[in-house]
Amino acid sequence: MAMYAVSRRLLISGGSAIGALRYATTTVLKPLPTSFREERDTFGPILVPSDKLWGAQTQRSLQNFDIGGDRERMPEPIIRAFGILKRCAAKVNMEYGLDPMIAKAIMQAAQEVAEGKLNDHFPLVVWQTGSGTQSNMNANEVIANRAAEILGHKRGEKVVHPNDHVNRSQSSNDTFPTVMHIAAAMEINSRLIPNLKHLHASLNSKSVEFKDIVKIGRTHTQDATPLTLGQEFSGYSTQVKYGIDRVFCTLPRMYQLAQGGTAVGTGLNTKKGFDVKIAAAVAEETNLPFVTAENKFEALAAHDAFVETSGALNTIAASLMKIANDIRLLGSGPRCGLGELILPENEPGSSIMPGKVNPTQCEALTMVCAQVMGNHVAITVGGSNGHFELNVYKPLIASGLLHSVRLLGDASASFEKNCVRGIQANRERISKLLHESLMLVTSLNPKIGYDNAAAVAKKAHKEGSTLKEAALNLGVLTSEEFDTLVVPEKMIGPSD
Amino acid sequence: MAMYAVSRRLLISGGSAIGALRYATTTVLKPLPTSFREERDTFGPILVPSDKLWGAQTQRSLQNFDIGGDRERMPEPIIRAFGILKRCAAKVNMEYGLDPMIAKAIMQAAQEVAEGKLNDHFPLVVWQTGSGTQSNMNANEVIANRAAEILGHKRGEKVVHPNDHVNRSQSSNDTFPTVMHIAAAMEINSRLIPNLKHLHASLNSKSVEFKDIVKIGRTHTQDATPLTLGQEFSGYSTQVKYGIDRVFCTLPRMYQLAQGGTAVGTGLNTKKGFDVKIAAAVAEETNLPFVTAENKFEALAAHDAFVETSGALNTIAASLMKIANDIRLLGSGPRCGLGELILPENEPGSSIMPGKVNPTQCEALTMVCAQVMGNHVAITVGGSNGHFELNVYKPLIASGLLHSVRLLGDASASFEKNCVRGIQANRERISKLLHESLMLVTSLNPKIGYDNAAAVAKKAHKEGSTLKEAALNLGVLTSEEFDTLVVPEKMIGPSD
Amino acid sequence: MAMYAVSRRLLISGGSAIGALRYATTTVLKPLPTSFREERDTFGPILVPSDKLWGAQTQRSLQNFDIGGDRERMPEPIIRAFGILKRCAAKVNMEYGLDPMIAKAIMQAAQEVAEGKLNDHFPLVVWQTGSGTQSNMNANEVIANRAAEILGHKRGEKVVHPNDHVNRSQSSNDTFPTVMHIAAAMEINSRLIPNLKHLHASLNSKSVEFKDIVKIGRTHTQDATPLTLGQEFSGYSTQVKYGIDRVFCTLPRMYQLAQGGTAVGTGLNTKKGFDVKIAAAVAEETNLPFVTAENKFEALAAHDAFVETSGALNTIAASLMKIANDIRLLGSGPRCGLGELILPENEPGSSIMPGKVNPTQCEALTMVCAQVMGNHVAITVGGSNGHFELNVYKPLIASGLLHSVRLLGDASASFEKNCVRGIQANRERISKLLHESLMLVTSLNPKIGYDNAAAVAKKAHKEGSTLKEAALNLGVLTSEEFDTLVVPEKMIGPSD
Amino acid sequence: MAMYAVSRRLLISGGSAIGALRYATTTVLKPLPTSFREERDTFGPILVPSDKLWGAQTQRSLQNFDIGGDRERMPEPIIRAFGILKRCAAKVNMEYGLDPMIAKAIMQAAQEVAEGKLNDHFPLVVWQTGSGTQSNMNANEVIANRAAEILGHKRGEKVVHPNDHVNRSQSSNDTFPTVMHIAAAMEINSRLIPNLKHLHASLNSKSVEFKDIVKIGRTHTQDATPLTLGQEFSGYSTQVKYGIDRVFCTLPRMYQLAQGGTAVGTGLNTKKGFDVKIAAAVAEETNLPFVTAENKFEALAAHDAFVETSGALNTIAASLMKIANDIRLLGSGPRCGLGELILPENEPGSSIMPGKVNPTQCEALTMVCAQVMGNHVAITVGGSNGHFELNVYKPLIASGLLHSVRLLGDASASFEKNCVRGIQANRERISKLLHESLMLVTSLNPKIGYDNAAAVAKKAHKEGSTLKEAALNLGVLTSEEFDTLVVPEKMIGPSD
Repeated sequence: MAMYAVSRRLLISGGSAIGALRYATTTVLKPLPTSFREERDTFGPILVPSDKLWGAQTQRSLQNFDIGGDRERMPEPIIRAFGILKRCAAKVNMEYGLDPMIAKAIMQAAQEVAEGKLNDHFPLVVWQTGSGTQSNMNANEVIANRAAEILGHKRGEKVVHPNDHVNRSQSSNDTFPTVMHIAAAMEINSRLIPNLKHLHASLNSKSVEFKDIVKIGRTHTQDATPLTLGQEFSGYSTQVKYGIDRVFCTLPRMYQLAQGGTAVGTGLNTKKGFDVKIAAAVAEETNLPFVTAENKFEALAAHDAFVETSGALNTIAASLMKIANDIRLLGSGPRCGLGELILPENEPGSSIMPGKVNPTQCEALTMVCAQVMGNHVAITVGGSNGHFELNVYKPLIASGLLHSVRLLGDASASFEKNCVRGIQANRERISKLLHESLMLVTSLNPKIGYDNAAAVAKKAHKEGSTLKEAALNLGVLTSEEFDTLVVPEKMIGPSD
Repeated sequence: MAMYAVSRRLLISGGSAIGALRYATTTVLKPLPTSFREERDTFGPILVPSDKLWGAQTQRSLQNFDIGGDRERMPEPIIRAFGILKRCAAKVNMEYGLDPMIAKAIMQAAQEVAEGKLNDHFPLVVWQTGSGTQSNMNANEVIANRAAEILGHKRGEKVVHPNDHVNRSQSSNDTFPTVMHIAAAMEINSRLIPNLKHLHASLNSKSVEFKDIVKIGRTHTQDATPLTLGQEFSGYSTQVKYGIDRVFCTLPRMYQLAQGGTAVGTGLNTKKGFDVKIAAAVAEETNLPFVTAENKFEALAAHDAFVETSGALNTIAASLMKIANDIRLLGSGPRCGLGELILPENEPGSSIMPGKVNPTQCEALTMVCAQVMGNHVAITVGGSNGHFELNVYKPLIASGLLHSVRLLGDASASFEKNCVRGIQANRERISKLLHESLMLVTSLNPKIGYDNAAAVAKKAHKEGSTLKEAALNLGVLTSEEFDTLVVPEKMIGPSD
Repeated sequence: MAMYAVSRRLLISGGSAIGALRYATTTVLKPLPTSFREERDTFGPILVPSDKLWGAQTQRSLQNFDIGGDRERMPEPIIRAFGILKRCAAKVNMEYGLDPMIAKAIMQAAQEVAEGKLNDHFPLVVWQTGSGTQSNMNANEVIANRAAEILGHKRGEKVVHPNDHVNRSQSSNDTFPTVMHIAAAMEINSRLIPNLKHLHASLNSKSVEFKDIVKIGRTHTQDATPLTLGQEFSGYSTQVKYGIDRVFCTLPRMYQLAQGGTAVGTGLNTKKGFDVKIAAAVAEETNLPFVTAENKFEALAAHDAFVETSGALNTIAASLMKIANDIRLLGSGPRCGLGELILPENEPGSSIMPGKVNPTQCEALTMVCAQVMGNHVAITVGGSNGHFELNVYKPLIASGLLHSVRLLGDASASFEKNCVRGIQANRERISKLLHESLMLVTSLNPKIGYDNAAAVAKKAHKEGSTLKEAALNLGVLTSEEFDTLVVPEKMIGPSD
Repeated sequence: MAMYAVSRRLLISGGSAIGALRYATTTVLKPLPTSFREERDTFGPILVPSDKLWGAQTQRSLQNFDIGGDRERMPEPIIRAFGILKRCAAKVNMEYGLDPMIAKAIMQAAQEVAEGKLNDHFPLVVWQTGSGTQSNMNANEVIANRAAEILGHKRGEKVVHPNDHVNRSQSSNDTFPTVMHIAAAMEINSRLIPNLKHLHASLNSKSVEFKDIVKIGRTHTQDATPLTLGQEFSGYSTQVKYGIDRVFCTLPRMYQLAQGGTAVGTGLNTKKGFDVKIAAAVAEETNLPFVTAENKFEALAAHDAFVETSGALNTIAASLMKIANDIRLLGSGPRCGLGELILPENEPGSSIMPGKVNPTQCEALTMVCAQVMGNHVAITVGGSNGHFELNVYKPLIASGLLHSVRLLGDASASFEKNCVRGIQANRERISKLLHESLMLVTSLNPKIGYDNAAAVAKKAHKEGSTLKEAALNLGVLTSEEFDTLVVPEKMIGPSD
């Protein structure tokens, strides 16, 4: 007990350095556990809270890496992927001679990890050893203790051994990159892609809905020739469609699993064929096309696949930032902005001004995009700094990518549901702006010549009048002629 | 009840899109609340869990911004800063006429927020409206309901009004930047600076401890002229010292508070002097030299102060990455690396190899540095994208900086305690490398000339012999002469 | 004359602000041109140096955007791509009715631009209008004047009109993105990919050359189990191979040309089919599979294709940084480093120490990698900041990507030629380190058990002896047994 | 001759890899030199073009680092700083015994370098050895040869020796960081700060000019309470003012010179006091407060000072991006945008639409800002990757910072001169928008109560009428009352 409590207490007294400050900013302490058992590793015995399944190495990491607090815990998809992997490893190891009784208990325990039922037993933070060894041991220890319980034994007795049984034929150095790839591929397929597809479909349906609404175009933020609102939205939906393509293009390298490389990529302490079998097992378990990595040295020493996929997410972030920015500017107003779009009202804007709709979904989405760009730099820095046979920025890289995937996926869903889906065109306003625009003068060129047309536009600009008023005033054509010639609807495509 | 549960349920069924995948990656549901009360805002009534102090606007945000899950909650230092600010606001508002009974209840409730006692009532995530309005309303609602309880009333009755009383003379637009500055300044002063100072002291004491150990220098990763290990560590400690200076240089702009600018910076709906008084109150409460911002328009529309401070943190990250990299390379081995430093053993490295110490603290620290660099880009992107009177990347910017401060602070402490403090010099190895080095030939130049010296070095390099062997072999000087001339201890400073 | 000279002179006097400084840092003035002709646009007449082919709009940009000096000129591949595009446009416009005499003169002039013969007539810098309009007009003006000369007319007479003839059916808004894509695709195919392929081949041949050299592995920078030097290099060559794949994966979107979208993407003022024909003409001219963009709105308003490709380059930069870092560390020494590789000596390291080889090619390459990472952020920021129908960060995005392509391509070639190709293994050193390593104890486990093996390793570590000495000393096995069991060559792959 | 020509020819044939491509993208070859002389270093003889002052080591670098072409040459401010430093070194070395005749010739030659007269003799690119050794040798060789000429000797004879005389008491390792600091400090003081001050003054004077123009405020891009246009510009000018402060805050560390540390920071081969004297000489020569670095180990092994200053530039980039974005959006139109500002017309926008002003200066500036953000990441990556006694990303870091300083300085000047200075307020449009705005209803609250005020606003919003129309229509107050109460001019500050 002493050990755990003392460690925490030291932390707190460390906080006392703030001295003069009235409010300590240290996190409020959770109630300390009151009962402990002894676990043991090659460093000797250590006390672990009785109600936790983890063992000695997890407990040491908890004490040695007090960085960032609970919100920095290893992301859940990694924990679940450990469950999947350890289940598959037990299954394959059984083929290679692991005692079936132990193997089956491991498989059952690992299944519970895969389903998220044992999340509370994974307390370690991202900021630990750069190989993720401690989280691998956390998984090994939890599964070993849980499997022992399943077999009717006590925690800590090592009837099922974390290393010899659960981690058999494995090293943290191939296991952690494997769960990185499993977790990323699953999150991309189950969360990101579906939500991007919904967003694409929604933007696309707006593009169809708005296909006949002719509006002023804007380049350099300045008035330009017209297009339809549907065309404008088709640009957005194309961006999202290509975003999905971009992620898919990177997956072949994400589906390569390092498992079987063990400590340095050679596969020492595995049997021939283990790598292929375990990739097949993971593929079957997850229904995703995982294969064994072509080159295990690359798979341990570099995480280029993550840098690459993060690059695709970074591109999507750039796309979504552009789309969200356009939508909030086109929806600006209600009186003193562009006002072409009416965005859904989801919450009170202000207690003072009725009609004030804040484009809050655009704001959440663009903040997410900025974070994804930032995570991309973190992942790139981590990815470029490997040494020799191992990159030791694994937890950072994994957590950064999963963070980006989660945020982009969730924010796309939120943006689609709470904003895009409900966007309406302010047809009246769009029409008003379109017809006030001076650039419609362009269609007069063939009839009255560029110089006369320019004179019309300049007069209108100077006097603040309409083009028609200016044209009639200058006497260059009749009202009927003007109405025949100035038809924005004919300016939205190439001519025959 | 329906509303809350349904919202969550929709989410889950959204998760079913994964179809073929065996394991859903959606977070396991927490137990749903079973009892609700009605709260109300200008959008109408909405159900809120009975055991929570928040009100209608918080509840709407919770439902409209289901992005990232619990670990994305607004950072605790922001919540606490809201407590401090709202307490100060009530105090100053009392001077301007707020009913003292209400004001005092607000002050008491706000104090509880400042102390972190009501953290569970702040469920909103960072990815919300970009002004942080919803978190401001969360604070207003929680404090109002808690103050009402203190006065013997029920939650939801609005005896103490979130807007009229708690938010009096304030707007989210000046409140949120104010808590950003309070939280950042407090965290920097209470967590980052003390831990950097400890790290500096520890590196400095190593520099003194190692001041007489002469070792080979390395430039371009290649052998170079010697220096002492103490000199090498003095470079590290200087980097950390300057890092502290760098952060301090940015604080004058961090101590400027936006409060008093209200909606757009003009201060509409405040009284003259309110801004100065509230800054003084916050300064007194926190014991930090806060002042009212010189220009409120800048203080709302831009967060350059955060971009700047993040730049200082980015510099510290660059420094610490260099230091940690050096330490792990100098400590590499035990047999096949440089092996000049012996790093503390904190946990088993491997069950196979005794003597394998992984420099895990260096790894955690360098991962933190990469994240800080990434956060810096996110903050820069957010900081550069303000529009008109308001930057709406506030929660991103706040949370990014606080994340960097926390990680750098905690990791510096961990690195100091679990690594630097226990570093020992491997004197034998250092001496061996030093005396094998060919560059000591340099000191022969004055005696035997550059050409002879070069011949000695080339012979030694070619034959793998010592310089002395080569020199004696070539007959250019005697054993005694060699020993008198080749004295690395005389090569570590300028000459008289 | 006045105008040009005065503009420059103002600049210089601006420089006088430095006052007290002894050395002005302003660039030395080039000799001013002494002869001018008048050119004209809708803003009126302006003087242009007589010996230059450019016209009024180019001259205005030159005066209005005095940013960065000559080294910031629009990259040459863009200028050449303008030559290709304008040649193709004239050809297709001829089909649509452009006077063949004029068209052919344009084609001839454009050909000269495509071949780089008129580079001196493209003085504009990257930091101009964000649509690249001024560079498009620069191309139009130069080609028009040159075509006029070809037809026997004078410069400035507009016999061939920059807008009506050279720019016919085009807008800067579709032209500039088109040349961006042409230039990037050509540079990638002609410079980057071939050089990466050479680098890959060279690394691969080293992998074969070194396939039998067993060496110590290193994880966490610490001694680990062995692998062959060939295996280590196979990781590097795989990284480069995947890098090539990564770039190829992005090209389908790079081969899409915006041409035909004109001002806002609608294609106003082009004829139906123009877009398809011009893409086909460019494809034929360049021998690359260009097609017309599926959605022209996306193609003008966003440059996601560049952000994406830059992401692939960023990944390659991460790969090459890792490889170059490993090579310089493995080549560190000659006496006090790892010393496993002998790198080619290309230039004197130091006048003091023979044998000092600085890994300068690694240094140049890693600096390039850092710049590519930086350019990637610049491109991302630019790519995310489009507004409405046009992204106006085009020159930045184009120049950033071309910079990265050029640097990576050239540096890969230099690194291959001046470093990788000449790397030799220091077999003696590699063998020495391998056999000193304590981790070979691993192979004793099956024979003497983990505990005895650990005792051997610990004794060797403590006493600084060899494993064999320790083992014999402890009496756990005979000299013959040790030699039979401890065989690193059997530790480099999975077992049967 | 052979060597130089052959090297270039190899390059070209390397270009032939493009095969099928019609247009080689390789840079057009410059005419090869036709006359050569022999220079010599420890690697032996090498041919150098006769008309160039450089020597053997420069020539080798030219051949070994064919990366990026001429536009990648070491920035001119570095070359000039070498002139200043070498002049000062000769002067101080004279005090320590250097032959005055030689010293004075060196001083004269170095002066020519400092004045930019010998720029053509500095052909090396940034992408060379990471210590900048080759550029240091370039300076030594050019100055030695030029000094020899001054003394009546021939180039290549080494009467004045590049190492023994010009580089005396110096190492590249302390020289290059010293010129980095000199160049950066001079460029910041002579180019960046003055231009930022002009921009600040110009924005400030606009703030005064516009102080009485009341306009609608915008938060979340939506209509908000009013402020004056002067207040809005005061936010911009404050941002620039703080930007200047930010850069100044970093200069104390930039003014520290590494000179005197020689190879690894110890100062081996210098005399005591050399470091202080040379810093004083540079300070006198440049009129800037340079001092000798407190810790030379830090000054060689890290470039945190550059990372820090780059962080300040990054903050300025964020500020200027915000300002330029606002200005182009406020100037959007002329008919279909916000239209509150009239920006100067500097060049024809379009041949079709009169009145189209593209905010091209904003575009150039924001592109520059994106590049500065990118360079900042490159500098950070380079700064974090030092090893042991030397950071070998020096040329990248130096060139990145100087690039950012130059671009920000030039673009600020261009933006000020060609945009800000000429901005006019569109008073009519501003007034129209202001009075149409629904948020003015706020001032009715005290008179008619929030509910009635809300009813007025909602009716106006729904019917598209003015507030006054709605108010009169609802009969809540009279026309006179409305005109008395709704006075935006009273809404722009706190009340008494």
